Amino acid sequence: VPTLTRREQQQQALRRDVLDAALVQLDEGGPSSVNWRALARAVGVSPSTLYTYFDSLDALYTELILEIYGQMATEVRRTIVAEAPPAARAREAMAGYRRFAKQYPARFTLVFTDALPGYAAPAGGPTIDAQVAVMTPMIEALAELLGEANGDIETWSAPMRSRAVGAWSQLHGFVSLEVNHHLVWIDDLDAMFASMIDAMLAGISRRGPAGRAD
Amino acid sequence: VPTLTRREQQQQALRRDVLDAALVQLDEGGPSSVNWRALARAVGVSPSTLYTYFDSLDALYTELILEIYGQMATEVRRTIVAEAPPAARAREAMAGYRRFAKQYPARFTLVFTDALPGYAAPAGGPTIDAQVAVMTPMIEALAELLGEANGDIETWSAPMRSRAVGAWSQLHGFVSLEVNHHLVWIDDLDAMFASMIDAMLAGISRRGPAGRAD
Repeated sequence: VPTLTRREQQQQALRRDVLDAALVQLDEGGPSSVNWRALARAVGVSPSTLYTYFDSLDALYTELILEIYGQMATEVRRTIVAEAPPAARAREAMAGYRRFAKQYPARFTLVFTDALPGYAAPAGGPTIDAQVAVMTPMIEALAELLGEANGDIETWSAPMRSRAVGAWSQLHGFVSLEVNHHLVWIDDLDAMFASMIDAMLAGISRRGPAGRAD
Repeated sequence: VPTLTRREQQQQALRRDVLDAALVQLDEGGPSSVNWRALARAVGVSPSTLYTYFDSLDALYTELILEIYGQMATEVRRTIVAEAPPAARAREAMAGYRRFAKQYPARFTLVFTDALPGYAAPAGGPTIDAQVAVMTPMIEALAELLGEANGDIETWSAPMRSRAVGAWSQLHGFVSLEVNHHLVWIDDLDAMFASMIDAMLAGISRRGPAGRAD
């Protein structure tokens, strides 16, 4: 491990402080409140000095998105037991996806909706890999259920890919509707989520590797 | 129909102009660009005069959300043939839901995510009914498929409600991921959407009124 100079260490610490301040702003006021001037003030530098740490607001957003995907990937993996059967692993991954969104709705919304005016993630850039890392435990478990040899979904046959995207869609849609208060009329969301995921995984298992959408 | 005074007609026309200007701002710059000053300027009144037409920015947002749900409800119904079988009607409603989101991603995001900092829809207010109107054709078709007597989902048994919410979740999740550019790696999204919806409706029909999640 190369030793960082004192100056490099200070730079890293300040970048970390900026990202922490941005997470606080995001959680408290939504994406539009993540603000260059307020961030500079929060970490005690001038707005122009902040440019020595981040090239632009977009560069800062990209770091923020990477940070959030990283946190979400950790939460998705947290309760997975590597030796468990694939359906159980998929269930834990999906539960983690929901837990993260419920705990940090603004972070979830930021990374999954085009919430930042004028911001576009760099094409083919690091945010893609960071999102893949969130999905990998779920995709690897679905690969086993579907009889695909590996977790690289782009190599799967079209029907299998369609089922995996259908599963992700159902998970993502439920969680999005829930954290945005569109399911408040349902008494027991935990039970409904559990039964929905069970039915989804049972359907995938039943149709299995050679299954048809009959 | 009571006759409006000339002044009332002018007021209605200006309110309409403000909403149209807000839709343009939303489509072009996202939720955070819907701005009181710019709206006043767009319709040629002062910011303070605009308060004689809308009580507050929140009141304007509520009107805007009602307007968008109304447009979406129209699109959802547009291709439904009343005499068609329920699965065909559900399919058309879901296709309309997706068409609307793809054509107006900022409007779709506005009504389905908490995108407006500080805004909360009035509790039990008109935006609830407006969202129900979007969902009604789909829910009525699912009611027939599931053997429920009516389209009031809150009266359904828990398992049937769970299936309907599961269907909505899958639709909503796919569309949300698509319009936010998370499915760009898939070549033929139209075909994948169609096969996902077919499998969803086939699953609901197969399990039918007395079906179990086996």
